[in-house]
Amino acid sequence: MSKVIQDGDYLFKKVYDYVLHRIERKEWKEHEKIPSVRQLASEMNVHRLTVLKAYQLLKQHDKVYVKDKTGYFVQSNVPKNLEYLDLDNPIVSAYVQKNHLSEIHQSPVSYHFSQALIDPNLLPNHYFSDYVKKVFDLYPKVLATYSTVQGDLELRETLTQYFINQYKTHLNADDLLITSGSQQAIHLIAQTFIKPRDVVLFERPSYSAAIDIFRAQGAQIVTVDIHPDGYDLKQVELYMKQYKPLLFYLNPTFHNPTGYTISVEQRKNLVELAEQYRCLLIEDDAYHDIYFDHAPPSPIYTYDTAGTVIYIRSFCKYISPGLRVAAVICQPSLMNSLITVKSLADNGSPLLNQKIFLHYFSSLRLQQHLEKIRIALQIRKEIMEEELAVTDWKWTSPKGGLNLWVQLPDKLPTELLLTKSIEESISFVPGQVCDPLKQLSSWIRLSYSYANEKQLSEGVKRFVGVAQSLSK
Amino acid sequence: MSKVIQDGDYLFKKVYDYVLHRIERKEWKEHEKIPSVRQLASEMNVHRLTVLKAYQLLKQHDKVYVKDKTGYFVQSNVPKNLEYLDLDNPIVSAYVQKNHLSEIHQSPVSYHFSQALIDPNLLPNHYFSDYVKKVFDLYPKVLATYSTVQGDLELRETLTQYFINQYKTHLNADDLLITSGSQQAIHLIAQTFIKPRDVVLFERPSYSAAIDIFRAQGAQIVTVDIHPDGYDLKQVELYMKQYKPLLFYLNPTFHNPTGYTISVEQRKNLVELAEQYRCLLIEDDAYHDIYFDHAPPSPIYTYDTAGTVIYIRSFCKYISPGLRVAAVICQPSLMNSLITVKSLADNGSPLLNQKIFLHYFSSLRLQQHLEKIRIALQIRKEIMEEELAVTDWKWTSPKGGLNLWVQLPDKLPTELLLTKSIEESISFVPGQVCDPLKQLSSWIRLSYSYANEKQLSEGVKRFVGVAQSLSK
Repeated sequence: MSKVIQDGDYLFKKVYDYVLHRIERKEWKEHEKIPSVRQLASEMNVHRLTVLKAYQLLKQHDKVYVKDKTGYFVQSNVPKNLEYLDLDNPIVSAYVQKNHLSEIHQSPVSYHFSQALIDPNLLPNHYFSDYVKKVFDLYPKVLATYSTVQGDLELRETLTQYFINQYKTHLNADDLLITSGSQQAIHLIAQTFIKPRDVVLFERPSYSAAIDIFRAQGAQIVTVDIHPDGYDLKQVELYMKQYKPLLFYLNPTFHNPTGYTISVEQRKNLVELAEQYRCLLIEDDAYHDIYFDHAPPSPIYTYDTAGTVIYIRSFCKYISPGLRVAAVICQPSLMNSLITVKSLADNGSPLLNQKIFLHYFSSLRLQQHLEKIRIALQIRKEIMEEELAVTDWKWTSPKGGLNLWVQLPDKLPTELLLTKSIEESISFVPGQVCDPLKQLSSWIRLSYSYANEKQLSEGVKRFVGVAQSLSK
Repeated sequence: MSKVIQDGDYLFKKVYDYVLHRIERKEWKEHEKIPSVRQLASEMNVHRLTVLKAYQLLKQHDKVYVKDKTGYFVQSNVPKNLEYLDLDNPIVSAYVQKNHLSEIHQSPVSYHFSQALIDPNLLPNHYFSDYVKKVFDLYPKVLATYSTVQGDLELRETLTQYFINQYKTHLNADDLLITSGSQQAIHLIAQTFIKPRDVVLFERPSYSAAIDIFRAQGAQIVTVDIHPDGYDLKQVELYMKQYKPLLFYLNPTFHNPTGYTISVEQRKNLVELAEQYRCLLIEDDAYHDIYFDHAPPSPIYTYDTAGTVIYIRSFCKYISPGLRVAAVICQPSLMNSLITVKSLADNGSPLLNQKIFLHYFSSLRLQQHLEKIRIALQIRKEIMEEELAVTDWKWTSPKGGLNLWVQLPDKLPTELLLTKSIEESISFVPGQVCDPLKQLSSWIRLSYSYANEKQLSEGVKRFVGVAQSLSK
């Protein structure tokens, strides 16, 4: 479980880790001066005493030294190799970051409100064996061959045709890359374009795995708040001007975790800003087809004429998460780099999975399945909202997606709530995990997609009970 | 096609790229002095005029400047962002390296001697649809669920039992990680343990994708020659002492590309050296079951008592490359880091593929298949060797694996040979691609595993003809 208490101890540890991380990665080199106490306190928005305490411990641990009272400097000969290869102790690499969400998911509970996954019972399982049989009949050697690195051409052509029909865009199969899920797509993009200390823009809150991936790559994250009516575009422009971010990772349609959707007008403006300030937009679109009343606006990439958008589209969440198939669309020069990195990472996604997905995707059953699943998820959302109606908690009812983003009363201690909930066999995601700044401690994400109707009704009741017992 | 000519132009470009790469990655920082012409010439084993020429062009391109005649310094304000995001030009990231082998494989030819893959016709294709059916009967929701990040427990338990039976080692399912092919395993290991400028040991020659992966991660590669009778262990020890490499990536059983196998005695000595100098051994074991007369020695990891070996075992090459399933074995503290990095990279390999592999692996058919494939490959190897017998080329006949590593006469121009061969619809891998130092220009790798007997006989004859026409 990640530490999420906002007390002095936690902050002090955060500053300590922040500095140590930079020294170990050699971003701050031997005998280089590190930021002053005042500077870092202001940058990290913590009290100066907190920074001072961290610096003193770093000095005690021989990571930094003080010179002529002018400041703190990086110690030389930090015996990294020895520490690194002390095989009795865990090896902690500078590149290894925690994957916070996966830690929470590992807790065995009966009421899964932390999983932004769809209940396996809602997925078209019993049809799949037919498609698999068809795939083996059509391609008897499907398991004996590799896919090309970019992905199976037949699948890319089918998806290209789908996007052309849906969005009237110009596109050809060479503009698509098939990845093993959208998470691999994000990981490939981070590896391809980000070097330590590069600045990236993120929505706040955001998808926690994406935060972990970009942090692990050494990115400096600058955040833009997302509201029910979108971003403050003046702020976006200011940040693009000021910080020159290489890219803006965004999830503008039934956003995870909030469920908010960015308007058409903002989509158009964003593309203009991105072009003007030469900032790539990484549009993660994993929930596009999960809407309750109206289809959402076209993806941002459909408004892009200058090639500033990299579009990640995942269908598998609501068809077959087990297949791990997603598509990335971008302009040729970016595509070439992504293909190279993909070739190093796994030399191409498995062909079998791509072919199975292709045959289901091309079938008439897909539309029927989507209609069914939208209704089922809307009902589940409504059950969760009904059970929560007895509280004074606040949320904006989402028009699609898998989650409620709920604001709890300030006085409710979220970490204790998580501990007690897991004791009661209930899981949820604390807001801090979705916040690049690790704050938002009075928010939580509740997913209504994984538990069934009975579990939702029972589990949310029980959860409200746990929370109420803590508020007394 | 990668440029492999060892002429002045190529070397000059290599030096230029080497320096620019380090500046762009900020390994060499603004206003830092870069190595002198003399130093770099000696390090890169090129003429001083070649370095000077590269430095002059770097100066002309405003990447470095000269100060007080004392040397070359990194220019500040290299307008990276602008260059980076000039959307009309290809974006070249510092992290993107070429995947040399995949470029060669893309050439459409009739006689594939570049692919170290097994002819799909030799693989158990027609049985697989049975196993797939079984998997869907046993796990009807297999496509609706994710595997755990570490891999399907049932598969890990089966593999654990297999390793215990085969090698009498202590092992449990928690010591195994399932990856999407051994290439992903190498990539995860590089990401987990290597930071820019870390030193790693490599065999020379070595697996070209592994070279590309470690280079992309910023590693400095130090090489140890591999001979038919193994390594010079005094050299290995000297390098471990002198360069303190974090790890030694090795492929000691039917080594790719040479086919050589390291003796039991050297295996034991290596483990001792690794423990003494705290250097991880990354043992890549992709061809273990492809032997012609006798089974090879036990893997190095079976001699390891101190946890210094990370063992990568791939079975899929000779069962089903399309499944992309490999296993990594290592001690718990290393395993934890690998799981975290795997969780960021793709959140776990697809469950369907793991279950299909599990059921074939557990079946009696596997042993029958292995016996059949060993004979088929031995015959193919012998056909290739017979056709090559008319030449004065040299090779050590391999006792397993998929390749011949052949030394051509010095005077034969390898790059021209590759161009002409591809014109004649024949592909092979030039030695430079397998050499971390990009030399070994008189060696080539010929794979006998992908082409069938007729293609081998015809294609090798034709290839010898092309070579002879160039020697005249």
